[in-house]
Amino acid sequence: MIKVPLYGQERIDDLLTDGLGIIQSREVFSFSMDAVLLARFASVPNSAKVLDMCTGNGVIPLLLTTSTKAKIEGIEIQPRLADMARRSVQMNELEEQVSIREGDLRQLVNETGHGYYDVITVNPPYMPVTSGDVKLNRHQAIARHEIECTLEEVISTATQLLRAGGKLFMVHRPQRLAEITTILCKYRLEPKRIRFIHPRIDAEANMVLIEALKDGKPEVRILPPLVVYDQDGKYGNEFMDIYYSDKKGGKDRR
Amino acid sequence: MIKVPLYGQERIDDLLTDGLGIIQSREVFSFSMDAVLLARFASVPNSAKVLDMCTGNGVIPLLLTTSTKAKIEGIEIQPRLADMARRSVQMNELEEQVSIREGDLRQLVNETGHGYYDVITVNPPYMPVTSGDVKLNRHQAIARHEIECTLEEVISTATQLLRAGGKLFMVHRPQRLAEITTILCKYRLEPKRIRFIHPRIDAEANMVLIEALKDGKPEVRILPPLVVYDQDGKYGNEFMDIYYSDKKGGKDRR
Repeated sequence: MIKVPLYGQERIDDLLTDGLGIIQSREVFSFSMDAVLLARFASVPNSAKVLDMCTGNGVIPLLLTTSTKAKIEGIEIQPRLADMARRSVQMNELEEQVSIREGDLRQLVNETGHGYYDVITVNPPYMPVTSGDVKLNRHQAIARHEIECTLEEVISTATQLLRAGGKLFMVHRPQRLAEITTILCKYRLEPKRIRFIHPRIDAEANMVLIEALKDGKPEVRILPPLVVYDQDGKYGNEFMDIYYSDKKGGKDRR
Repeated sequence: MIKVPLYGQERIDDLLTDGLGIIQSREVFSFSMDAVLLARFASVPNSAKVLDMCTGNGVIPLLLTTSTKAKIEGIEIQPRLADMARRSVQMNELEEQVSIREGDLRQLVNETGHGYYDVITVNPPYMPVTSGDVKLNRHQAIARHEIECTLEEVISTATQLLRAGGKLFMVHRPQRLAEITTILCKYRLEPKRIRFIHPRIDAEANMVLIEALKDGKPEVRILPPLVVYDQDGKYGNEFMDIYYSDKKGGKDRR
């Protein structure tokens, strides 16, 4: 890693894979398990043009570099976060593979044209604006609530930007599953693989990974559940394997 | 059980709960695990008016009597199956609680009026007509393929027959999940609880149980996975508990 400037209370965290680091800040943005599982779930051919929407501090593009040689763009609407992401890319010397755009993803299609990307990943804000946790600051609120972009805007933008046969990989809260699948189908993004994350085998799912295919046929596979903690309260074997894997290769169930 | 006539190659099978028996026939209709799991998943208040659509040989109404005192109607379009179901009801001396209608569920609302039922259960045909297994006879084909009734007709009929706040319990194939949730939402049946059945912990789901609430708010819980076989290839404890339970009582996760 090369040295880059840090501002305010920023710190460098270890991504625990391929020696990658990432700039984080408690006041501004820290990635969560959701982003890691999404990056591991997404299968990205080396020749793909890839976009990570709502990229935040760039955690997903950084992690994707461990499993694909594809060029990856991240787009982030908050200048402070886009700047953090850019410095993380620079720090890891990944400027050849990863670029960060600051901007509104709803405007992107005007620049790229329709059907430009092969793969889109997105860890969008999970909560509608009405269900507010008012203790959040502005940066955190935009990352978690649909202030700058609703779920339907994310999905309608993704479908414009994806070519026919292109794939969208999304992580979200299972509570909104019916709404998510309804909106995906409305925009001709057919869910093809869904994986639920359960904290324990006997607990309800608290996360869902979805792969949708632009103009795909309607048939979805519900993958085996991914269980985070085993009966002893320790991370389960498969979870450890996914979460801390270097160079994950081409396994089907991630 | 009292003696009833049997026709052709009909036999009496044990429902393994509360001493119930059921008339089955390999040529006409035999119930599957799906129906049992649906009956265990449905929570039915004693005061509810209950309808089982596509009731077949009446397996779901029969099983429901072990957990509720509610009056239960089954409707079946095939006269041969409706007759089998009626004789099973008679055999188990359940005529006070269970009645079987022969008829087309799409016409039922003309008789009952809108919003008549509190609870509807349905184990509908799983497969569109196009994907035909041509080796089936007519009885089997109607039970498995959407010949007499499509998924959208089942759901649009259910929403007419249910009062606001009434519940639909359905079992289906997870491959059609996106379509199911989209159609449910279109007809104001909001999915509230979903449970996936996996043959083994590391296998894809092959069955899904769905509870939808008429005019409910959009928020769905994905229940813990139900795993049929444990690592030794034997039925898992929870599965055994559900499948062979007598008097299952009011547990939440069935």
